[in-house]
Amino acid sequence: MAALQNRQWRLKARPVGMVKRADFEFTTAPVPEAKPGEVLVRVLYVSLDPAMRGWMNDGKSYLPPVGLGEVMRAIGLGRVLASNAPGFKPGDTVVGMTGVQEYANADAKFYMQVDPRLAPLPRYLGALGMPGMTAYFGFLDICQPKAGETVVVSGAAGAVGALVGQIAKVKGCRAVGIAGGPVKCAYLVQELGFDAAIDYKSENLPASLKQHCPDGVDMYFDNVGGDILDAVLARLNRKARIALCGAISQYNSAGGIAGPKNYLSLLINRARMEGFVVLDYIPRYAEGMQALAGWLAEGKLKAREDVVAGLETFPETLLKLFRGENFGKLVLHIAEA
Amino acid sequence: MAALQNRQWRLKARPVGMVKRADFEFTTAPVPEAKPGEVLVRVLYVSLDPAMRGWMNDGKSYLPPVGLGEVMRAIGLGRVLASNAPGFKPGDTVVGMTGVQEYANADAKFYMQVDPRLAPLPRYLGALGMPGMTAYFGFLDICQPKAGETVVVSGAAGAVGALVGQIAKVKGCRAVGIAGGPVKCAYLVQELGFDAAIDYKSENLPASLKQHCPDGVDMYFDNVGGDILDAVLARLNRKARIALCGAISQYNSAGGIAGPKNYLSLLINRARMEGFVVLDYIPRYAEGMQALAGWLAEGKLKAREDVVAGLETFPETLLKLFRGENFGKLVLHIAEA
Repeated sequence: MAALQNRQWRLKARPVGMVKRADFEFTTAPVPEAKPGEVLVRVLYVSLDPAMRGWMNDGKSYLPPVGLGEVMRAIGLGRVLASNAPGFKPGDTVVGMTGVQEYANADAKFYMQVDPRLAPLPRYLGALGMPGMTAYFGFLDICQPKAGETVVVSGAAGAVGALVGQIAKVKGCRAVGIAGGPVKCAYLVQELGFDAAIDYKSENLPASLKQHCPDGVDMYFDNVGGDILDAVLARLNRKARIALCGAISQYNSAGGIAGPKNYLSLLINRARMEGFVVLDYIPRYAEGMQALAGWLAEGKLKAREDVVAGLETFPETLLKLFRGENFGKLVLHIAEA
Repeated sequence: MAALQNRQWRLKARPVGMVKRADFEFTTAPVPEAKPGEVLVRVLYVSLDPAMRGWMNDGKSYLPPVGLGEVMRAIGLGRVLASNAPGFKPGDTVVGMTGVQEYANADAKFYMQVDPRLAPLPRYLGALGMPGMTAYFGFLDICQPKAGETVVVSGAAGAVGALVGQIAKVKGCRAVGIAGGPVKCAYLVQELGFDAAIDYKSENLPASLKQHCPDGVDMYFDNVGGDILDAVLARLNRKARIALCGAISQYNSAGGIAGPKNYLSLLINRARMEGFVVLDYIPRYAEGMQALAGWLAEGKLKAREDVVAGLETFPETLLKLFRGENFGKLVLHIAEA
């Protein structure tokens, strides 16, 4: 095993404004053997998530920042090559914090077994992975939907947003998605069953929100922040709930984050805005997996992955996220199963 | 009765930026008789509240805006002169939406009886009135304090803030007040029993918050918005609760409201920010009155009123609020009891 060479993407500089290739370094190092308690994994797919932008910043957050010179943090799916830990054997398929690299060697507690026969592998990084858990627990726990209520979700064609809208339909709600471009919007309504979709790139957001949410907004699942958050705040109903999942429109802003200037709508409408972090729900992941897998099997949920090949494309592929160019869960395919 | 002349402050123009005298008009009109179901009240005290600034703006809120040409809306305390409604008789002392005028004639349902022997009259516009209910229900219901937690309150020397800090002490919390100037800050600590007070006019707010909230902030009761809200957001603990009561620093801003640019602290810390409107608690006012009156009687709460004489001073006295010049509950004394 010691002869294996591991190509790795390391964080070279803390980005200022938009992430760029020069913030990373593509390096090669020999693969160490699995120490006691560790598992060596051949990484097949790397998940590219908006949260990665936050991990690149210095400062206090829900996880420590990735250190300069360290392999870039990422969730990945791979196959066990060697195991020095009970419960894992070569050939097992696992999901965990692999990092952006070809081989990952880590404590077995950071990996979870998945069954490769039950779903396409990239789905374990999407609807049956962290984005699925984020949609399931974030929406149900924070928004507390009731049948007949209206939910708006931004980033609606993204990995999390598409699931939130579909779960809302399962729960009997009216689901209105906000996404960029007519193709994504048509997909939301025609393929995923959203009641309406708003193209923030071409439509007047306040007018479209008024049109598609004639009874106001009871819940908002926010992935984007910025002007879209402000437009939705202006349409809140009494006792509305906003789940703060992310703010992708703000992550790469060199000028700092724009606060929601309509936040006093929370006061007038006795509404609440609440943040959550999916990691808190790890003890309940089994519940989420079971529900999502069930709905997928029944055809009530549809999942879509946007698979890009080649570890070497990592920086450019990550940028697709921040430009809104991905369509479905963005994953990097770096080795054949 | 028809010969009585009523001096009234009417809204003449919607203010742009800071309120000014020219936004109002001081008029005189004869007092009409009480129609069936109505009560005619001689107004003795008029309550001046930050919320009045919002009522002067056009647009959707929790109450309709005061119309141009209408008597300025205000809560007041007065004595019944004539009653055409059951349950009220001349000489009764009542609190209700009197408006800024000498005589108020309104449906009896807008008035509540109070007992003039139990407290100084202006207190029924403060600790035993709307500000008291705001502090009691807003803090207890939205923040859900637990003993040992740290609460920060802004506008802490104001009518609501001073009560929030004292209720926090009753509940076994650490109370840190933010107020303007050394006199108010000394009052909070030495007279009201706050654990610490921060003078936002002279201190470095982030540094002082760090010093006085060494274990972080579990609850924030916000009366002011703006930079102070942002500074507190940066110190939140996990699962912190922010009660949005007001944003007096923003109400007179001609450039629009500044949103809290640190709002993503809610996400990182799984925290929530929630608005409330005291009017929703009217069905529970008796509970609030009983608790506050009990604590006042036991010496656990102290109340302070800032009484200014003369109906004709209304516009200038109102401005004291927005300049932070009042010290305690601001009321206008317009007639002898």
